[in-house]
Amino acid sequence: MDSCVTPLRHGGLYLVQTTDFIYPLVDDPYMMGKIACANTLSDLYAMGVTECDNMLMLLAVSTKMTERERDVVTPLIMRGFKDSAMEAGTSINGGQTVVNPWCTIGGVASTVCQPNEFIVPDNAVVGDVLVLTKPLGTQVAVNAHQWLDIPERWNRIKLVVSDEDVRKAYQRAMDSMARLNRVAARLMHKYNAHGATDVTGFGLLGHAQTLAKHQKNEVSFVIHNLPVIAKMAAVAKACGNMFQLLQGHSAETSGGLLICLPREQAAAYCKDIEKQEGYQAWIIGIVEKGMRTARIIDKPRVIEVPAKEKDGELW
Amino acid sequence: MDSCVTPLRHGGLYLVQTTDFIYPLVDDPYMMGKIACANTLSDLYAMGVTECDNMLMLLAVSTKMTERERDVVTPLIMRGFKDSAMEAGTSINGGQTVVNPWCTIGGVASTVCQPNEFIVPDNAVVGDVLVLTKPLGTQVAVNAHQWLDIPERWNRIKLVVSDEDVRKAYQRAMDSMARLNRVAARLMHKYNAHGATDVTGFGLLGHAQTLAKHQKNEVSFVIHNLPVIAKMAAVAKACGNMFQLLQGHSAETSGGLLICLPREQAAAYCKDIEKQEGYQAWIIGIVEKGMRTARIIDKPRVIEVPAKEKDGELW
Repeated sequence: MDSCVTPLRHGGLYLVQTTDFIYPLVDDPYMMGKIACANTLSDLYAMGVTECDNMLMLLAVSTKMTERERDVVTPLIMRGFKDSAMEAGTSINGGQTVVNPWCTIGGVASTVCQPNEFIVPDNAVVGDVLVLTKPLGTQVAVNAHQWLDIPERWNRIKLVVSDEDVRKAYQRAMDSMARLNRVAARLMHKYNAHGATDVTGFGLLGHAQTLAKHQKNEVSFVIHNLPVIAKMAAVAKACGNMFQLLQGHSAETSGGLLICLPREQAAAYCKDIEKQEGYQAWIIGIVEKGMRTARIIDKPRVIEVPAKEKDGELW
Repeated sequence: MDSCVTPLRHGGLYLVQTTDFIYPLVDDPYMMGKIACANTLSDLYAMGVTECDNMLMLLAVSTKMTERERDVVTPLIMRGFKDSAMEAGTSINGGQTVVNPWCTIGGVASTVCQPNEFIVPDNAVVGDVLVLTKPLGTQVAVNAHQWLDIPERWNRIKLVVSDEDVRKAYQRAMDSMARLNRVAARLMHKYNAHGATDVTGFGLLGHAQTLAKHQKNEVSFVIHNLPVIAKMAAVAKACGNMFQLLQGHSAETSGGLLICLPREQAAAYCKDIEKQEGYQAWIIGIVEKGMRTARIIDKPRVIEVPAKEKDGELW
């Protein structure tokens, strides 16, 4: 499970909590703070929990930064983290800041709730479908964006993407990573989800396999479709498949929820999330009888997910 | 306050939680795990909370260790942490392990409780006395022990301590740091404590000042006595006062509770803790009328706290 659940001494309540921290992966410290917060909360959302009672912030500022750099960067990271927590309807009380050779940003998210407020992710049944709420390819986009300044790397991919494509993909990735999975979690209850996980460091397939392994029923997950940030599938191929994106192994940061939904509810789930947030979700696979495994079919369909325009601005 | 307190949506309950992590400071990885756990829990105990509902473990294993070193050291640290959590009547569900240039060990401790289970540390009144439940000098002892192998350092202190003194002090410090402040917290309720803090990185005076600043009443803290691990006051003096031990600035790890107690209850508190745990506690100062400050008198009395023997063994 993405969060730990502890029965409490009081009133049939449960403590659901999680911790996560990550390393900087975008240039903008404010966005980095938002991403770290969304990434921490995502483990609660994967359990269908929509209310977070408190967050702690864990920040390690790099010893390799100058004092001036620290003074500029640290408050921006903290502001991003706080703004994201506020957007999630929670607040940050407590935490710790240290210096460390590597900059790390993360937190702890805790909720005390009744048992009907969380969904234990072990209830998939044959005939369910799998829904994914964010596109894949954040790691590819972030790396490709760095390669704009590294000619020997750029030369390997410039035949398949333009400078402009990469910048758009990077913006789309940042926006996606900073987006909360909160609406996705709320709709899990409305559409009777049978369980979910969030897609992060182990890639789509890694997390699908973990989720499959924990099912009560003898089921397996088969993935047919891979929604990927536009052009990033081509980039992943062009650089010798180092990311293993289409094999489902490319790491994501603050990725979407992968949700088991009753077949007849899945389309309505996707429609509802798009109506509320303006973002697409995709039915990417099915749940069939099996030995609690997960796989991607031989030639999955890649869905190119374009960067979006809103009020004329890329977001 | 040492922990954050969040009112919850359910049943008049509160979430009390804290996070802390530290760097290795003793040679023994198992003891290091115990110390890190005791240090994390100590912030709850300072609030008079005696039950911890869940802990998360946060571990960063050093990139500079060989794989073999990691394989040996990491499980020992984790075992120490877990054993200490078990001793505290809690368990560890969740956490994160990463690699990082610096090894760090810490955790998160959370409790959901009724308002009568914690003591907001703002209620000191004139006439109270200050009790300290562990001796000072852990940092001095840990450093002096390292200097046994560094001749130019050792030469500065060898006139005032023997090899044997330093080894005993180091054992005493390790034992003290690994000891839980749980009984100390429980007795705070029995003897009507008006507030407490735990003594850690900012030294006795630093934490006393913070505690004084947060009092509702116009009070100040005056410290007369400094219980110090045997010989460590002399070591601190001999090495040019770099620790500022007698000025109250020497950092402690997993130090004792500094508690404001009604004068007529303090002696009974100290007696009770010694009866239950076999460790002394000391009345070290008084609460007088003032502007919420704390100070140590000009020539404080240094109480030499010997290493202890139990069943013929140093502990």
